[in-house]
Amino acid sequence: MTAAHGPLPVRIAGTSSPRPGRAVTTAEIAGRLTPKRDAARLEAVTGIASRQLVEDDTRPSELGAQALRLALERASMQPDELARIIFVGSGGGEMVLPATANLVAAALGLAGSCDCFDLNNGCMGFLTAFDIAARGIATGGGPVGIAVVEMTSKVITPADPRPYVVFGDGVAAAVITEDRNGGGMLGSWLRNDGVQLGNVRLPNPLFTGRPERIRFTAASDRMLEEALDAIRTGTEAVLAQAGLDLRDVAWILPDQPNGAMLDGLIAGLGFDRSRVVPVAHDLGSVGAAAIPISLDRLLRTRDVRPGHRILMVGVGAGISFGAILVEVGG
Amino acid sequence: MTAAHGPLPVRIAGTSSPRPGRAVTTAEIAGRLTPKRDAARLEAVTGIASRQLVEDDTRPSELGAQALRLALERASMQPDELARIIFVGSGGGEMVLPATANLVAAALGLAGSCDCFDLNNGCMGFLTAFDIAARGIATGGGPVGIAVVEMTSKVITPADPRPYVVFGDGVAAAVITEDRNGGGMLGSWLRNDGVQLGNVRLPNPLFTGRPERIRFTAASDRMLEEALDAIRTGTEAVLAQAGLDLRDVAWILPDQPNGAMLDGLIAGLGFDRSRVVPVAHDLGSVGAAAIPISLDRLLRTRDVRPGHRILMVGVGAGISFGAILVEVGG
Repeated sequence: MTAAHGPLPVRIAGTSSPRPGRAVTTAEIAGRLTPKRDAARLEAVTGIASRQLVEDDTRPSELGAQALRLALERASMQPDELARIIFVGSGGGEMVLPATANLVAAALGLAGSCDCFDLNNGCMGFLTAFDIAARGIATGGGPVGIAVVEMTSKVITPADPRPYVVFGDGVAAAVITEDRNGGGMLGSWLRNDGVQLGNVRLPNPLFTGRPERIRFTAASDRMLEEALDAIRTGTEAVLAQAGLDLRDVAWILPDQPNGAMLDGLIAGLGFDRSRVVPVAHDLGSVGAAAIPISLDRLLRTRDVRPGHRILMVGVGAGISFGAILVEVGG
Repeated sequence: MTAAHGPLPVRIAGTSSPRPGRAVTTAEIAGRLTPKRDAARLEAVTGIASRQLVEDDTRPSELGAQALRLALERASMQPDELARIIFVGSGGGEMVLPATANLVAAALGLAGSCDCFDLNNGCMGFLTAFDIAARGIATGGGPVGIAVVEMTSKVITPADPRPYVVFGDGVAAAVITEDRNGGGMLGSWLRNDGVQLGNVRLPNPLFTGRPERIRFTAASDRMLEEALDAIRTGTEAVLAQAGLDLRDVAWILPDQPNGAMLDGLIAGLGFDRSRVVPVAHDLGSVGAAAIPISLDRLLRTRDVRPGHRILMVGVGAGISFGAILVEVGG
C-alpha cells in the first residue's frame, strides 16, 4: 500500500522497549550446541553478543501490556485514551481465540473503550501496524497503541542451530497520535512478494496437527543479498514518494536480523553508521520488534529534533518489505 | 475505533463466497457423536441443517485465493490492481511465517504489487479488515482485497460435541475500492472488551507446545444473552454515529453463530427478517466468514439499489463487537 494524499499528520507520542526474560550470552548458546561451537567465532559471525530469552511461563500479552503501559506513560496518556490496540507478533501471542490483543487490553483494564486485533506480517509487522495507525488517525479514528512481542524462543531449538544462534525474544510498544505541529508520515511504501516467498518457514500447528519450529530455507549469503536488495528498494521508493533524498533523512532504522547483516546493510547501502541505532548486538534477531526497539532507543538516547526525518525500513518473511518515513513535529 | 470525519468514500466492488469442501448434514454429524444424538432435535436446537467441511489437505491460502479471484472478476479488476490484501482467519492459515496472506498473493501471481498481512479478531475479523480498508482507501492507499477463511474443522472434534455440532468451514472475499458516486462507509464503531473476554477459547499451540482445540466456556443461554447485548450496543452506536435510525437501513447483516442465535437476534432486537440474509442454516457457525458470506448473498440475490444502507454488525471472542454502516453509491 502507498500513501498518495500527502503527509498524514501523526506523531510518535511514546515508545518503550522493556527487556524480556534474562540475558543469555552467545558463549552460553555456543555451549548448548552439539557439537559445541567456538563462542568468540560464533559471536563474530553473527554479530550477536547476547540476547534475552524468557521463562517458559511468560505470557506475551503481559509483556505487550507492560510495554504499552510504559509507552503510554511516556506519552502522558491513559490507556482509555486509545482508540485501537494492535498486537503484533510473528508467531502470535498465547491465545488464538480470543486474539491476544484482548488480553493486552484486559491487562490495561480496558473494557470496551477501544478495538483491538492481532496482526502478523513477519518482520514487517510493526511497519504495517504503523501504516494502519496513521491512516486510522488521519480519518478521525483516534490514538493507536502498537504492542510488538516476538517470543521466538518458543519455536527454536539447539537441534537446529542456525535459527537458534540468532533469535532472541523482543518486546516494544509505540503510541501514535494526531500531530498538530507539522510532523507526520511523509511516505509509506509497503510491499509483499508472495512469489519470491522468502527464506524463513513456520507452519501453523493448528493445521499440521504437530509441534512446529522455525526453519531457514536458504544459505546466509543469499539471505543477506535478498535483504539488501529489498531494503534498497524500500528506501528508494519511500524517498521518491516524499520527493526527498537520503541526505534529507536524519535517522535510519533498518531491520537487523543479525549484527553481521546490519553491518552488511550499512556497508552495502551506504548508510551513515552514526545515524543508525543498533539492536542486534545485544538482542539478536527479534523479528518485528527490531525496528520499534531501535525507534525507542533513538528517541530516548539520541538528539532527535523537530524537523528530523526518521526512515524505518525492513524486510522479512513473505517476502515482506518496504519503508515508512516520518517527520518529527515541532 | 470510531470514524469521526464523516463518510469515507468506499464501495464494495466485488464479493464472493465459494463453498469449501463438501456438505455434511446435521444428521451425519449426530451419528458421529457418542452417545448418538437425535438428528431432528439437534437440527432444531442449533438451527443448522448442514455445514461444509473441507478435506484434510485443503490449504486455506488456496481457498482464500479462489474467493478473492472470484470477487476481483465480479469487480472487473485484475489482481495487480490491489494495493493491499488482508487475510482474515480466526485460527490463521496454514503458515505462520510467512503470513498466509503471502501465499494468497502468490496464488494470484502477485510479486510486489501490493502489501498483505494476516489479521485475527475472532468473528469480528472481517469488520476490522473492512474498517482498515476504508481508511486506507480514504488516505490514497488504493483498492483492498479481503479474504476470509475459517477452517474451524481443524480445531473441533466429536469428543467435544458443543463446538462440533455448530462449526463449519467458511470462505468469503470482498474487494473494496474508492467510490465516486456518493456511496461510502457512513459509520464504523468497533470495540473489544478484554475484561469480559468472552466464552470461546483456543490457545496458541506454538506457546503451549501441544495440540489445541476450540472450547466453549459458558452455557448457550448466557452466550445468546451476551451476543444480543453486544449486537444491540453496536447497532445503536453506529446508527447514532451516522445520525440515522434502524428504519433508514435497508439490509441488516448480523453475525450468526448458529441458526437459533440468528432467530434470537431477529426476535430480540426487532430486526425485520426480510432484511436479513441467513447463512447459519446451511453453513453453521463460520466465524468471521458469516458477515461477508451474508454480504455476498445479499449483493447477488436481493434487490440492492443505490442509496440503500447496509448494516453489518457482529460479536465474537474477545469479546469483540461493533458495527459498520455502508451506503451503496449510484
